[in-house]
Amino acid sequence: MIIAKTPEDVKKVVSGWKKEGLKIGLCPTMGYLHEGHASLVDASVANCDRTIVSVFVNPIQFGPTEDLATYPRDFERDCALLEEHGADLVFHPDPEDMYFDDFCTYVDMDVLPDTLCGASRAGHFRGVCTVVNKLFNISKADMAFFGKKDAQQLAVIKRMVRDLNIDIEIYGCPIVREDDGLAKSSRNTYLSDEERKAALILSRTVLEGQHICAAGERNSAALKEAMMKKLAEEPMADVEYVEVVDGLNMQPVEEFKEGDLVAMAVRIGKTRLIDNFTVGDPDIVI
Amino acid sequence: MIIAKTPEDVKKVVSGWKKEGLKIGLCPTMGYLHEGHASLVDASVANCDRTIVSVFVNPIQFGPTEDLATYPRDFERDCALLEEHGADLVFHPDPEDMYFDDFCTYVDMDVLPDTLCGASRAGHFRGVCTVVNKLFNISKADMAFFGKKDAQQLAVIKRMVRDLNIDIEIYGCPIVREDDGLAKSSRNTYLSDEERKAALILSRTVLEGQHICAAGERNSAALKEAMMKKLAEEPMADVEYVEVVDGLNMQPVEEFKEGDLVAMAVRIGKTRLIDNFTVGDPDIVI
Repeated sequence: MIIAKTPEDVKKVVSGWKKEGLKIGLCPTMGYLHEGHASLVDASVANCDRTIVSVFVNPIQFGPTEDLATYPRDFERDCALLEEHGADLVFHPDPEDMYFDDFCTYVDMDVLPDTLCGASRAGHFRGVCTVVNKLFNISKADMAFFGKKDAQQLAVIKRMVRDLNIDIEIYGCPIVREDDGLAKSSRNTYLSDEERKAALILSRTVLEGQHICAAGERNSAALKEAMMKKLAEEPMADVEYVEVVDGLNMQPVEEFKEGDLVAMAVRIGKTRLIDNFTVGDPDIVI
Repeated sequence: MIIAKTPEDVKKVVSGWKKEGLKIGLCPTMGYLHEGHASLVDASVANCDRTIVSVFVNPIQFGPTEDLATYPRDFERDCALLEEHGADLVFHPDPEDMYFDDFCTYVDMDVLPDTLCGASRAGHFRGVCTVVNKLFNISKADMAFFGKKDAQQLAVIKRMVRDLNIDIEIYGCPIVREDDGLAKSSRNTYLSDEERKAALILSRTVLEGQHICAAGERNSAALKEAMMKKLAEEPMADVEYVEVVDGLNMQPVEEFKEGDLVAMAVRIGKTRLIDNFTVGDPDIVI
């Protein structure tokens, strides 16, 4: 497994792979990898000849009051996991390898970033689009793999690819959960034992929402009310949003349909957690 | 010569060329081609195996009060010129082939677009960056050719390529002029006979500026004053700006050096014309 630090290092390797006509898969990550990330790597290895994983805590997608400095990092452990899952190249740049001092170009989007996580995280998706666009250009990947846990991110990336005519196939991988239902997240490491238990209210609320949809409910207000009621069962849960949005443009809908997204962000203590389901997808297993 | 209307049409042809390992050049234009554009095509044909020319009046780089509707168009004449100069493919999309109704992704830049033409043309360079980024992705070009007449545009494109790690070589072609010195521009067609004569004040002022630089002047205020004085000789000239900026970041400088840019925008009647020179380049010939 090759470890590359600079875009130029990646370019050299990729240009050889391209000459051989190999199909390249990219899994963009911020490191501190868990089985959710591993599932992206597995999907890439299954679908592509070569798999590039980027491990980069991207400063420009964090707000000034967010957890950039404390975001968990363990590159050695990440490399062990990636080697085990068959990644071919790990791209692990320093921020200054990605952003010159006078860096000033951004990929931004109207509409899709206004709702859900974008509403409270100003500039977050601008940072995501910009770094992912750079990673696409650096890796020259034919396919890229993203987790459905970050559902809005996945929709934003798909829209960027469509709007800018980027020749890459975007593959959304199902949410990977702990045995008790909690969606895997690098941020779960922030949770105390007590918070870890309280955090289960997210997946339980997802399941509750899925049951309500399966029973035929299609009115967003009714679904949201029921899910808010479920979340209220957990005193430690501080709800940022529960929302039902169109699966493509992420805008709130009054009546929802298959393919639309039901998403939530909830703080447990100081930790902000997200979870979601797509209407029509199989129920999560807890 | 192939004429392609949609990004998908281009993609099919380009994918064949890529498999053959051919080097692809791109010349982005808004059509109504003149010898300035022809020089870009010639440079591409000389440097690449295949040359793509886009002919597209890009709506998103025009402001609401600008000349989108009246911008001159003559696609048949353009094709004749392009065939003559050895272009291999003309990409001539309709706006709806480039921008879906719910298009919402833009490439934007801090800093470089604030000065010169960007100061009076809000959103112009966002439109330019976005369409050029799309054209790079559609054409998969190895090189792209731009005229130095749009000097700020060239600097902006170079910065976008650097910041977003786009694997393309940007080539700036010298300004092509009429025999009497007027820089070639599709917008020259707007000029009445009287205005056409008055427009010569731009190139004459460029030459005056070059002489002053050649004599050793390196103070921006002194150079600008002399050039403003020259422009004032023409009563029909309505000066928008004369500016001396850093050649890389397009920011005004008090003292200038080789490689910095001296640029102007001047209205002659209703027609906005631009001209410029780079300090240290050979004097223009009039």
